[in-house]
Amino acid sequence: MINRRVVLAAHVSGMPRESDFRIDAVDQPPPGEGEVVVRNHYVSVDPGMRGRLSGEASYTAPVPLGDVVGSATVGRVIASNNDAWPVGEWVAGAFGWQELGLSPGGRGIRRIPEGPIPPSAHIGVLGIPGLTAYFGLLDIGQPKPGETVLVSTAAGAVGSAAGQIARINGASTVGIAGGQAKCRWLTEELGFDAAIDRLAEPDMAAAVARECPDGVDVFFDNVGNSLIDPILPLMRQHGRLVISGQTADYNLGREERVGLKNTRSFITARLKMQGLVVFDYAREFSKAWTELTGWIQDGRLKYREDIVDGLESLPAAFVGLFQGQNFGRKLARLVS
Amino acid sequence: MINRRVVLAAHVSGMPRESDFRIDAVDQPPPGEGEVVVRNHYVSVDPGMRGRLSGEASYTAPVPLGDVVGSATVGRVIASNNDAWPVGEWVAGAFGWQELGLSPGGRGIRRIPEGPIPPSAHIGVLGIPGLTAYFGLLDIGQPKPGETVLVSTAAGAVGSAAGQIARINGASTVGIAGGQAKCRWLTEELGFDAAIDRLAEPDMAAAVARECPDGVDVFFDNVGNSLIDPILPLMRQHGRLVISGQTADYNLGREERVGLKNTRSFITARLKMQGLVVFDYAREFSKAWTELTGWIQDGRLKYREDIVDGLESLPAAFVGLFQGQNFGRKLARLVS
Repeated sequence: MINRRVVLAAHVSGMPRESDFRIDAVDQPPPGEGEVVVRNHYVSVDPGMRGRLSGEASYTAPVPLGDVVGSATVGRVIASNNDAWPVGEWVAGAFGWQELGLSPGGRGIRRIPEGPIPPSAHIGVLGIPGLTAYFGLLDIGQPKPGETVLVSTAAGAVGSAAGQIARINGASTVGIAGGQAKCRWLTEELGFDAAIDRLAEPDMAAAVARECPDGVDVFFDNVGNSLIDPILPLMRQHGRLVISGQTADYNLGREERVGLKNTRSFITARLKMQGLVVFDYAREFSKAWTELTGWIQDGRLKYREDIVDGLESLPAAFVGLFQGQNFGRKLARLVS
Repeated sequence: MINRRVVLAAHVSGMPRESDFRIDAVDQPPPGEGEVVVRNHYVSVDPGMRGRLSGEASYTAPVPLGDVVGSATVGRVIASNNDAWPVGEWVAGAFGWQELGLSPGGRGIRRIPEGPIPPSAHIGVLGIPGLTAYFGLLDIGQPKPGETVLVSTAAGAVGSAAGQIARINGASTVGIAGGQAKCRWLTEELGFDAAIDRLAEPDMAAAVARECPDGVDVFFDNVGNSLIDPILPLMRQHGRLVISGQTADYNLGREERVGLKNTRSFITARLKMQGLVVFDYAREFSKAWTELTGWIQDGRLKYREDIVDGLESLPAAFVGLFQGQNFGRKLARLVS
């Protein structure tokens, strides 16, 4: 079998470019003893992958040139030498931007439960983005009923889940998103109490102060320092900042990055700021899946996918993430 | 009676100057019903007071021009119209930089237990500095045996207590202080594992990396952003930063302040940074006093006082705090 892949052609410097990637094709031999071959139906496009593409060390190893770009994947077993993983079964994995994935002995794949929730959701609202929202908000943010939770990139996969989970927990929720369509979706479909269109607000501190007149108890952020700094003085006493992602900072060198200067609030308002890597919560994923699935089924947790078609679309889709072009969980569909 | 006081002559802008203060004298009438008059024997000189002297809002109200500069005080009742507070009793209070203090009905004063610990320690290692070290380190820093705790302004009242409490809890402790004498005191008298002389180290990140070769688990800081930023990349996984004070930032306007740029570590190393105001722990002070007193008595918690004489010495002593001139808890003795 031929396996087409998107590989790293050049280490990314600054904003990613389509030319940082290229497509190649390699042979995928039939499965050896215990091995399972999966055809990926959907692969994810994640801003968090940016860190690994520059060649600098992060919490995961950098991607070498010529290697497949990593991502979450969902697909079906198409060849198996392992009775536990029959052909036809749906599985989620992390095979990256390629048509096929090989699992030795079932390692790195998990069975997708049958049911009304479509397979792609298992790498979205039930995958890393949904789990990041769940643990970041509930373990670090710990919103209490009546508190105000502010969420950035609120129309994205992580932010939209974080805001809805805050609402389910009784908090008032305000989202920041780019454009009127996203903002309407937040307030009209997802039940956010207010939405701030960052494209229409020249002064973000003023906009947040207007929509959060009592201040912000929990700020769940996926943007980075340029957004955190103006919001620090608006945090309420004992406020919590959840550093879930740093999308705007990934592409900036140290000198270009905005520094946090409004740090006096850490003492005057007794703030806590904490980052997370969701894999630290792996032992609690089952509990989260059960709860998230329940919320999806009773209509309290909605999600949206933003799907492009084909491996060829992936580089442009990745570049577009950093220009605010996605509206929901960005995925590429490889099998139609 | 005449009560001489140091009052605020001008709101402090940038580095404090002696001319920001002046001495006046007011009449102190005899105590009215239930009132208690205290003669202050020692008053404290605290960097944290800087925030209230600029006229900007902080977690406490700003000091109006002409008002007494606030501080902790310890002294004896010299006139009383309250049977619960007899003349001669030692009490700690917060009367500020003045010779006398008036307590209505015993409010704002607490009895100092008799014993081998001298009264001045009750506004030092057993006062706000010691309590800040205790709760900041144990509640936010939470050092575990074998972890590395880095402490800045380590020869100061808060830092020296924080480092020793970390050591008592089984952590390896490294202090940053200004000058060889302070560094020798840390390692030879207080049992710090290592000390870094900030006056002799052009590259603080390199010095910390050298003395903390496995990284820093807990950074207990009293300096501010200029020191935090180089240390962020040296924090170990799940590291904690305790924002106890921001001495270097108090005197800087927003534009002059160093911004935190090495914030990627918040995700890559899952860091937590949290500020504290010790009064939030007031209900737990008794427990802390018991434990701190035990450590002092069994010789595991040492402290040092840096005493000037007379009200007239206070403005210069305060200015000197921001030039690293103090070596231990800075106090002024008003009764010799």
